[in-house]
Amino acid sequence: VTQNPNLVTLDAIHAAAARIAPYVSETPIVPLTPTGIGLKAESLHPIGAFKIRGAFNALLGLGEDERRRGVVAHSSGNHAQAVAYAAKKLGIQCTIVMPDNSSRVKLEATRYWGADVRLVKAAMRASTCERLARERDLVIIEPFNSLAIMAGTGTIGLEILKQCPDARFVTAPVSGGGLIGGLSAAIAQSNPVIQVIGVEPELANDAQRSFRAGRLVALSPDETGRTIADGLRVPQLGELPFANIKVFVRDIVTVTEDEIRQAMRRITAEARLIAEPSGAVALAGALKLGLEREKTVAILSGGNVEAGLYASIIGA
Amino acid sequence: VTQNPNLVTLDAIHAAAARIAPYVSETPIVPLTPTGIGLKAESLHPIGAFKIRGAFNALLGLGEDERRRGVVAHSSGNHAQAVAYAAKKLGIQCTIVMPDNSSRVKLEATRYWGADVRLVKAAMRASTCERLARERDLVIIEPFNSLAIMAGTGTIGLEILKQCPDARFVTAPVSGGGLIGGLSAAIAQSNPVIQVIGVEPELANDAQRSFRAGRLVALSPDETGRTIADGLRVPQLGELPFANIKVFVRDIVTVTEDEIRQAMRRITAEARLIAEPSGAVALAGALKLGLEREKTVAILSGGNVEAGLYASIIGA
Repeated sequence: VTQNPNLVTLDAIHAAAARIAPYVSETPIVPLTPTGIGLKAESLHPIGAFKIRGAFNALLGLGEDERRRGVVAHSSGNHAQAVAYAAKKLGIQCTIVMPDNSSRVKLEATRYWGADVRLVKAAMRASTCERLARERDLVIIEPFNSLAIMAGTGTIGLEILKQCPDARFVTAPVSGGGLIGGLSAAIAQSNPVIQVIGVEPELANDAQRSFRAGRLVALSPDETGRTIADGLRVPQLGELPFANIKVFVRDIVTVTEDEIRQAMRRITAEARLIAEPSGAVALAGALKLGLEREKTVAILSGGNVEAGLYASIIGA
Repeated sequence: VTQNPNLVTLDAIHAAAARIAPYVSETPIVPLTPTGIGLKAESLHPIGAFKIRGAFNALLGLGEDERRRGVVAHSSGNHAQAVAYAAKKLGIQCTIVMPDNSSRVKLEATRYWGADVRLVKAAMRASTCERLARERDLVIIEPFNSLAIMAGTGTIGLEILKQCPDARFVTAPVSGGGLIGGLSAAIAQSNPVIQVIGVEPELANDAQRSFRAGRLVALSPDETGRTIADGLRVPQLGELPFANIKVFVRDIVTVTEDEIRQAMRRITAEARLIAEPSGAVALAGALKLGLEREKTVAILSGGNVEAGLYASIIGA
């Protein structure tokens, strides 16, 4: 029995799986033909990203009173869409604070799902979210620094254990750590033979630095903003994800921008799936580690990419 | 009990489902958010197309002696890859005759799976296949005019009935008719409330003409060669598929080249899937018929498209 209250328990992950099942479909593991790597296609959710799992688990965990008050979140992208979508399905009022440099497709999708979107300067997103929560008595839905979110993302791990029980490696992108925190907790506590490895852009390697230093290391938003992987620009891991990463993750490696683009091209040609740049990072890491012939699952975390950018990368 | 020996029986389709199950994974139905349309993602098979179903069912139905002799097929694309892939997995010698104007990705993939590829002028493909079969005692694997192939494609219908039992419409592309022949036989004989509708490019509408005339009508390869949908250029339905289409299909409609390109863009943006032009035709038809708000499944038949062509379409 785990004593550290910051760790995500298997019980919490199994409870999340049961709770979100009516709303979230299992995603397939699609072979990257002809390698031994499978892509866990989280891009195939209705909002095109894994964030739907944590959002539903968090919203379904609210009490009646909290649901009536409504929710608020800040996000540049997939968390925004996920909370908006889940709130709409559950009939909860939803406000989303988005930085004014958010990707257009993510902004439009968030509006589509009926959220009250507030555009602010990037530096103001957290403070605006807190102010709105205070003034309007809204419940803040954290993007990653939350046990409820990580229990939700942990359900990806349960599905992998069922779909590909003989996996040897699982690679996942790292941003705030909500994805890999829950995922690694699910896998390491169920089958410690499987190694969970985090992957970051070289240009936004705060998690790798933190992992190696054993304490949280932050980059500046100007630094992390350099990577094409717009979903991985969070400049520092959350404390709760970091607690889980330290215990359950084997290592964190980095990839170059060119390796990210090349992984996007291979996902297109060899799996007929669409990855946003952040969504291709886990495959880029698996390829860099030479895992093509190993039984490996790379998390394709999302597929929300502007058509023009995507076309320019795959047509290159 | 069906008396017409040209019709695909439900028994044959259920037998095919059991036979191919160890080799062919179920494909998901991915929502085209935010419409009511789901895409049956046949692009997610290891060879990127539905043809894997018929190929495995045909090869698994061969006797020991036939397996030892080896197989030959002619195809410009997805059938070639499918037969090559299935033969490799089953340890059967495989020769594929391909027209010298075949798509490069399909040619390379067919070679990758170990087939002995013979490139010939397009007009010579059938005769070369027959000559090789005669000279080298090979078993010909028909691309569509075969009950074994249609029983294999019928398994798509069984999966739809299970995954989306409240579907009202199913749309599918029509080329030689092997896909829609088996699919419609499975669905119409299980739940006749569901309407199966074929979709063709306007520029290759031989099946629509045949359907309306009640007899086979052929176009010339020069005519059907005009469409971007390279998988749908077969100039005439097979006789066996036509027999099933006449009984089990509700109607056949056509779409323009622009509508095909637009459907490819929507599949990219709203479902994060990749469709080759032929693979987007069924969605184009569903959209043209105004089925966005109906419970509809459109068959995304394949995702094998040259990166440059795909980029030029989705970036437009």
